[in-house]
Amino acid sequence: MLPNVSKRQLERFPLYLNYLKQIKKEGEVYISSSTLAKALGLKEEKVRKDLQAVSRIKGKPHLGREIKPLIKDFESFLGYSDINNAIIVGVGHLGEAFLNYAGFSNRGLNIVAGFDIDDKKVGYNVNKIPIYHIDRLNDLINFLDVSIAILTVPSQVAQKMSDILVRAGIKGIWNFAPTHLRVSGDVVVENVDLAASLAVLSYKLETKF
Amino acid sequence: MLPNVSKRQLERFPLYLNYLKQIKKEGEVYISSSTLAKALGLKEEKVRKDLQAVSRIKGKPHLGREIKPLIKDFESFLGYSDINNAIIVGVGHLGEAFLNYAGFSNRGLNIVAGFDIDDKKVGYNVNKIPIYHIDRLNDLINFLDVSIAILTVPSQVAQKMSDILVRAGIKGIWNFAPTHLRVSGDVVVENVDLAASLAVLSYKLETKF
Repeated sequence: MLPNVSKRQLERFPLYLNYLKQIKKEGEVYISSSTLAKALGLKEEKVRKDLQAVSRIKGKPHLGREIKPLIKDFESFLGYSDINNAIIVGVGHLGEAFLNYAGFSNRGLNIVAGFDIDDKKVGYNVNKIPIYHIDRLNDLINFLDVSIAILTVPSQVAQKMSDILVRAGIKGIWNFAPTHLRVSGDVVVENVDLAASLAVLSYKLETKF
Repeated sequence: MLPNVSKRQLERFPLYLNYLKQIKKEGEVYISSSTLAKALGLKEEKVRKDLQAVSRIKGKPHLGREIKPLIKDFESFLGYSDINNAIIVGVGHLGEAFLNYAGFSNRGLNIVAGFDIDDKKVGYNVNKIPIYHIDRLNDLINFLDVSIAILTVPSQVAQKMSDILVRAGIKGIWNFAPTHLRVSGDVVVENVDLAASLAVLSYKLETKF
């Protein structure tokens, strides 16, 4: 059973994992929460809590925790060994980049198909992954055994596509359209709003806040 | 002078703007904070505060605020009419997608060049934007009048690239590498960590939290 962690905690886990892998490669064997905190610019108290939530490994005095099993604990918590099949809906520039990106499979996400309405894309492969017409979604979704859709369509059609996906049985939507999606209760939406992030960057640059 | 808003507030502004533009296109003329709140799944109190932070327009009873000037206020707050030049550092799949993406220019970001180390990319154009070798960064950065770098390199080289960018005078880094960057005090970093977002989605799907 998964222990209870907050969204903010969870968002830090890939950062830890990434850093731990890096220093393991560099030959480190142990890490203390204070070293980890300093390296990642986080408060030590926070790091200690995060590590306790993920791992039962106890640290040794003056050394800290062993890195190798800690990496395993993070990977297992993040479910990187449980593979989820996913589809890309909207094969524009971002959708295509994701089809070509190899890193998702290391993170438990296996992209099995793309969907679009553009005849110049439908029927072709990108990175050996087939692109189907969106009209075939309903037929293919069970066959493809998919639970996650990555939504990379323009914002004007995002809600409409989301409705189609939910009707077809999709349980999780990773939404890159800058739109608030209304979905039924048992569907999970996680938003990546690049416009919002860019707004924060610009504002910080203006005000240095 | 920019009024003080929180990061969370700011992140909502592009969402409002997007929705307001959409309903304006559909022929709407006025919007109340309660309608806006319902449409975007936000609390009305929050929406009211956000609107007050951005706009001096007063709402009319039973109608709400006029949409057209409200859109202008959001755009002006977000600085979408002040253009910042930016470079892409790391022309992999994501970097290339960004070079091809037309939407940044509507949000005040003008991508003027890409930088990479790969001979198969350097010297070519993507979407009419030239790709230079990273060694030329120092020479070109003043000439290009750039303040923002979009960092789309693998995480192992992100810190090294970030150091080079900061030394060259970059003031803001939009970081897509899942790495915590250490930068000097006057440099602003905004992170988009796709691995973190994916972790949240997977965890929500497992636990329905």
